[in-house]
Amino acid sequence: MRAALSLAARGLGNTWPNPAVGCVIVRDGEVVGRGWTAPGGRPHAETEALRRAGHAARGATAFVTLEPCCHWGRTPPCTDALIAAGVARVVVALRDPDPRVDGRGLQLLRDAGIKVQAGVLRDEAARLSAGFLKRVSAGLPLVTLKLASTLDGRIATRTGESRWITGPEARRAVHALRARHDAVLVGSGTVLADDPDLSARLPGAAPLPTVRVVADSRLRTPPGAKLLDNPAPAWIATRAGHPAAALEALRGRGAEIIEVPALDSGLDPAALLRALAVRGITRVFAEGGAGLAAALLRAGLVDRLAWFHAPAVMGADGRPAAEALPLDLLSEMPKFRRVSAIALGPDLLSEFEAA
Amino acid sequence: MRAALSLAARGLGNTWPNPAVGCVIVRDGEVVGRGWTAPGGRPHAETEALRRAGHAARGATAFVTLEPCCHWGRTPPCTDALIAAGVARVVVALRDPDPRVDGRGLQLLRDAGIKVQAGVLRDEAARLSAGFLKRVSAGLPLVTLKLASTLDGRIATRTGESRWITGPEARRAVHALRARHDAVLVGSGTVLADDPDLSARLPGAAPLPTVRVVADSRLRTPPGAKLLDNPAPAWIATRAGHPAAALEALRGRGAEIIEVPALDSGLDPAALLRALAVRGITRVFAEGGAGLAAALLRAGLVDRLAWFHAPAVMGADGRPAAEALPLDLLSEMPKFRRVSAIALGPDLLSEFEAA
Repeated sequence: MRAALSLAARGLGNTWPNPAVGCVIVRDGEVVGRGWTAPGGRPHAETEALRRAGHAARGATAFVTLEPCCHWGRTPPCTDALIAAGVARVVVALRDPDPRVDGRGLQLLRDAGIKVQAGVLRDEAARLSAGFLKRVSAGLPLVTLKLASTLDGRIATRTGESRWITGPEARRAVHALRARHDAVLVGSGTVLADDPDLSARLPGAAPLPTVRVVADSRLRTPPGAKLLDNPAPAWIATRAGHPAAALEALRGRGAEIIEVPALDSGLDPAALLRALAVRGITRVFAEGGAGLAAALLRAGLVDRLAWFHAPAVMGADGRPAAEALPLDLLSEMPKFRRVSAIALGPDLLSEFEAA
Repeated sequence: MRAALSLAARGLGNTWPNPAVGCVIVRDGEVVGRGWTAPGGRPHAETEALRRAGHAARGATAFVTLEPCCHWGRTPPCTDALIAAGVARVVVALRDPDPRVDGRGLQLLRDAGIKVQAGVLRDEAARLSAGFLKRVSAGLPLVTLKLASTLDGRIATRTGESRWITGPEARRAVHALRARHDAVLVGSGTVLADDPDLSARLPGAAPLPTVRVVADSRLRTPPGAKLLDNPAPAWIATRAGHPAAALEALRGRGAEIIEVPALDSGLDPAALLRALAVRGITRVFAEGGAGLAAALLRAGLVDRLAWFHAPAVMGADGRPAAEALPLDLLSEMPKFRRVSAIALGPDLLSEFEAA
């Protein structure tokens, strides 16, 4: 199952709206087939592993990280494929909470005389599939908030210089993190200040079609923004009521406009995330700036935190990583639990989960 | 020599104005004596190791982390003791730059027919003795700046709540760090806000007599301050010209007043540190607040940085770890090189050296 989980992880960031699943087929102690959800969500992991196993699947055990689907979606049900291949035993990590499945996949396999075991490495699988599970159960994507600051939490000098606080190793890690998310989210201030491309570039690989989302209640994104040059999807979330011409100028550059209810302080971050979940997004990588970071933290919408600390101090006139939440008591602070700390050249990346 | 360095480290924080030295005496492959500089600076490491070795020192090799002294100070010269004990060979890590020694110790040993080797693990010894070396060479103590903040560099809420941002493990580590420094330094704002005791308490040990220094140009330290209850030395550094009665009230509570030239923004931090070096202090542990941290960083006086990051975010209305330096360009930032990162319960301690 660990091997299946590790295969599943390969799909993170490019299988949405489908979950990233891994499957290993073992017969007589030998791996005869391996598969993971392909980019775009199909073929499914089981289909691919069965295809590779061929006749060897007969009488074999299939290890799958998520309960096999039993409904016709864009592909035929995987339960049918497992049954047809003559698999003798199916070991599943996690039951699929999707109401179209939710235990029925396991039942169908059992009804076909297949030995079924569920719950193996369930916690690991749940962590891997957290984005998919959250979308199905709460209608929200998993949100990873990334910040890159000095030790004293500053992301730019008072004059706005921010390139680069962290080193090349940290910036490469950011691309790897983007690649494991379905969408990158920034505030319009970041677009105006940095005009970023926000693509996920990995060495030796073509740029990944990660969706770029701008939270832009005032519709400040210029039609000439660099992120609209990139062929990957660009979505601009904004409030209702902007002039049609302004919207058309952005649409003409390939942007999709998403209308989201606004609060006084900007877009309602929960409504924005729900709109992304409706479109199938399961994992969002929020890259700031300070306004977006504060809005997400304030609303309790940050599931994971990836904080890059550069070994430097800027002092109190530098620009803060997160705007005021605001809060008076330490007990009101959003708190996290560290899950890792990794040296990246001179910088340190600490990863957290909401506590 | 590694064993000698490790013995030497035991003395850090309580041998000032003397260096913390370690000595191991080996005869026929067996350790026959070990010593390290005792609290207060005497007996010296060599004296103690020779005493323990007794007759076994004859013909043995002495490993010493610092060139043995050759002058009468508060103790007789260690070169005489090594010669008198009949040691055959002396291996030294670091030459003592003190103008009363500076190679003459090694020469005296050679003149007495002892085989002398110097420079073994010199870099490690120099790092260990950095405070002593800096005091001798630059007339300044080594300064370790400690900060404990949220991930976004906040040390208190806007209402001033700061206890506790970090957990008990981190706070215990602070006591251990204090104990390895000769003096703890804070600004008067910290005394007024937190009324700390600033003692170095280690589990199972009596409180160590670490000097507590308050940088207090406006003489705001109240005579009732808790740090004056503690029998360890308390020094209040202030500018000239305060009323005699105010000074006497503090002296009556056991404080020593140190007059230091002031700049517009407060005491001249370099002058303050020079005054501490004159009094024999080799290692200073600066614990804030934000004004003192900024003053030390601005003047380039921070040699080492110990930063505790709690896994929480406070937002921009929290109080900053360091006041404005101020600076406009990233290239002007004080930069550091990480030497370690240690998990302390939920918190992360990263230690740095000036880059």
